[in-house]
Amino acid sequence: MRIVIVGGVAAGMSAASRAKRFDPDAEVVVFERGDFISYGACGLPYVLGGAVGEWDDLIARTPAQMRGRGIGVQLGHEVTGVDAEARTVTVLDRAAGRVATEPYDRLLVATGVSAVRPDWAQTDLAGVHVLREIPDGQAIADSLKGAGRVCIVGGGYIGLELAENMCRQGLSVVLLERNPDVGGRVLDPEYRPRLLDELGRHGVDVRCGTTVEGLIGKAGRVTGVQTDGGLVRADVVVVAVGVKPNVDLLRAAGARLGKTGAAAVDVRQQTNVDGVYAAGDNCESLHRVTRRRVHIPLGLTANRMGRIAGINMAGGDAKFPGVVGTSIFKVFGLGVARTGLTQGEAAALGLNAVSVDVTSTDHAGYYADARPIHVRLTGERGTGRLLGGQLVAENPLSVKRVDVIAAHLHSRGKVEDLFQMDLAYAPPFSGVWDVLLVAADRLNRALRA
Amino acid sequence: MRIVIVGGVAAGMSAASRAKRFDPDAEVVVFERGDFISYGACGLPYVLGGAVGEWDDLIARTPAQMRGRGIGVQLGHEVTGVDAEARTVTVLDRAAGRVATEPYDRLLVATGVSAVRPDWAQTDLAGVHVLREIPDGQAIADSLKGAGRVCIVGGGYIGLELAENMCRQGLSVVLLERNPDVGGRVLDPEYRPRLLDELGRHGVDVRCGTTVEGLIGKAGRVTGVQTDGGLVRADVVVVAVGVKPNVDLLRAAGARLGKTGAAAVDVRQQTNVDGVYAAGDNCESLHRVTRRRVHIPLGLTANRMGRIAGINMAGGDAKFPGVVGTSIFKVFGLGVARTGLTQGEAAALGLNAVSVDVTSTDHAGYYADARPIHVRLTGERGTGRLLGGQLVAENPLSVKRVDVIAAHLHSRGKVEDLFQMDLAYAPPFSGVWDVLLVAADRLNRALRA
Repeated sequence: MRIVIVGGVAAGMSAASRAKRFDPDAEVVVFERGDFISYGACGLPYVLGGAVGEWDDLIARTPAQMRGRGIGVQLGHEVTGVDAEARTVTVLDRAAGRVATEPYDRLLVATGVSAVRPDWAQTDLAGVHVLREIPDGQAIADSLKGAGRVCIVGGGYIGLELAENMCRQGLSVVLLERNPDVGGRVLDPEYRPRLLDELGRHGVDVRCGTTVEGLIGKAGRVTGVQTDGGLVRADVVVVAVGVKPNVDLLRAAGARLGKTGAAAVDVRQQTNVDGVYAAGDNCESLHRVTRRRVHIPLGLTANRMGRIAGINMAGGDAKFPGVVGTSIFKVFGLGVARTGLTQGEAAALGLNAVSVDVTSTDHAGYYADARPIHVRLTGERGTGRLLGGQLVAENPLSVKRVDVIAAHLHSRGKVEDLFQMDLAYAPPFSGVWDVLLVAADRLNRALRA
Repeated sequence: MRIVIVGGVAAGMSAASRAKRFDPDAEVVVFERGDFISYGACGLPYVLGGAVGEWDDLIARTPAQMRGRGIGVQLGHEVTGVDAEARTVTVLDRAAGRVATEPYDRLLVATGVSAVRPDWAQTDLAGVHVLREIPDGQAIADSLKGAGRVCIVGGGYIGLELAENMCRQGLSVVLLERNPDVGGRVLDPEYRPRLLDELGRHGVDVRCGTTVEGLIGKAGRVTGVQTDGGLVRADVVVVAVGVKPNVDLLRAAGARLGKTGAAAVDVRQQTNVDGVYAAGDNCESLHRVTRRRVHIPLGLTANRMGRIAGINMAGGDAKFPGVVGTSIFKVFGLGVARTGLTQGEAAALGLNAVSVDVTSTDHAGYYADARPIHVRLTGERGTGRLLGGQLVAENPLSVKRVDVIAAHLHSRGKVEDLFQMDLAYAPPFSGVWDVLLVAADRLNRALRA
């Protein structure tokens, strides 16, 4: 049994480890186009800001460690083609410029996503970056040397994390966002101004409703961003306007893509092509709340998919359970989390959704350092089912309680059952009625009204 | 409809508010023996330590506010007798020394618990205290003036919270515990030494396996505690060896008590005596994991019971959902939480329980200030059911994720389903695989082994 894995980051390395563990006799080979495997890509912004010391700190396992487990790892090897009939892939050794044909019994395509570079960002000017991989981060760090002013394009969570981390380096930061506010893919409109406020409070110059038209430069280096609102001078530009799944190889193999443009896989991470699996950011997954296929590329999902693909490729039988759309991020002193559906998402799906908003304190109001926490909880009229929750809090860690909502969504629980829960209370940790209970109570009544 | 409520703290005031809201025409009268109503008793240790500014900060609502809602509140009124046939109670106005008979249609006995005072603690010596109510706390604060050395007897969570808060006041603290370690009612033996270590690190002189034999004093003031391990000199002694439910009034009414000694009530908080309800710390509750009646007096449970009693007394129909045994506390820099059953508790019940221990970091190991978190997860062999979890962490707030386990226990979920959950991940909040997922995976495998 020869298992070939394309891509050595989250899904790919999880799959390799699991496959080898499940079947120690299997030959497992990983081809990674770049020079790093098995690293925490979500930590990239934080190396720039200093909360993570070194790029190497992000690396969970080295190629040598993986080889020690009997897993073949080939860095700088790009898989450029596939023959699903013959069960072979074409592999380019980038350093040597050599091309080889490699056979497989099972193939995993774990090629992730690429950062979108709009036309205006397709440039040779130095100082223009995206942030997806360690070399991107290293290039940004190089560009920042001597820089004073940074322009970040895109107000999604990566853009926001970048803004925070650039500020922490003492840089002057301008954030451009096409939409009227930031965090639009995460929160309902009512909650987004809290993000803007927090960015403003820390000196980020946020310009929403601004469309980028082009870049200007001098002597081969970027010097500014031309927008419909005028010129924004910048020594460094980071483009964070979204990602797209890397599906060329899958397409070449004859694998089906979903409506989202990401790979369509079954619960075992198999594509429609015999022997070909896909896992990670390039895949769709099942949303347990809506029962629809979604493309929400996130770290845990990628790792879980990889694990499942690895077991199945090695002859086991594991199934991906789906996601409930949980995500979390920090921007300066604010924690932001969501799971399930927002009111806007639920309404767009035609659900009879009701939301309530509760503001409380993350722990007992009388106990030191109690800070506001805002919770929006969304349920379905008629069924009483919980649909989702959004949290924003000034004590960032306190939004991790989003996991309680996620757990309840997993079991398709009702709002009234959430209210019944015996959640932990002591003054340093929550109010007697945890804010989630308060919100569930209020939503329960709203659903019955 | 005249609703009489005995006791004006957590359960009593929740009941009063709910009853009045449910039936604004009902006459609701609260008799409170003491001088305070509606306060957060769990915050008492923290006023002593300074994390809560004033005793008054603990008060959620004043009598005037309650009266403004049309609820009659009588402070300093002790209900000393009940005639369940005639539906009357005997009420002593403590200040005036006057006794009156008050009629009721529905009676709620929300008299809570009292601190246990062993024989040796039944003393007239000044400087010997328990901590249950605001006047207890105020008396301790008075005693502490000029004191240098405090002896706390009892290593349950109140004793531990007291130890921390006394230390924060610069006092020298000795903690005496009869058992071989502290936290014995909360954690399995394997986890308790972490508490001892933390206490020791902060200079608390913990003496386990020590039995108190008596007190010594001079000029009417305590000067020390005589133990089987010698004399412990102390200017102030706080006895925190447990609580007992206040059930005299219920007993007088002919209400049945459970095996635990606390009131036996149905899911509507009704006793076996027509028109007589009980709610709060003096009641048993149903444990959803074991389906047994337990006596676990805690703030959320008391408030919830009161709420349910209030609705039902006013003519509604609400049911207490039971508890899963969740509790949480902080001791210095350590967060401690548990829910469901410990391995020891499960084994004592004859369950075929298996536990696994996982140590990880509360957030991504490479991100600043990642600290150890220890999780013990317990499941049942055969059924695969989750039975409980214990958490100890150096980043105290991170143990609030116990609520995810509690949520899953509520729905009698399986360990394998916990592992499937889409929990929130970003480097400042957790590892890619949250420690709960890591523990669930490991337990799942252990259950199958």
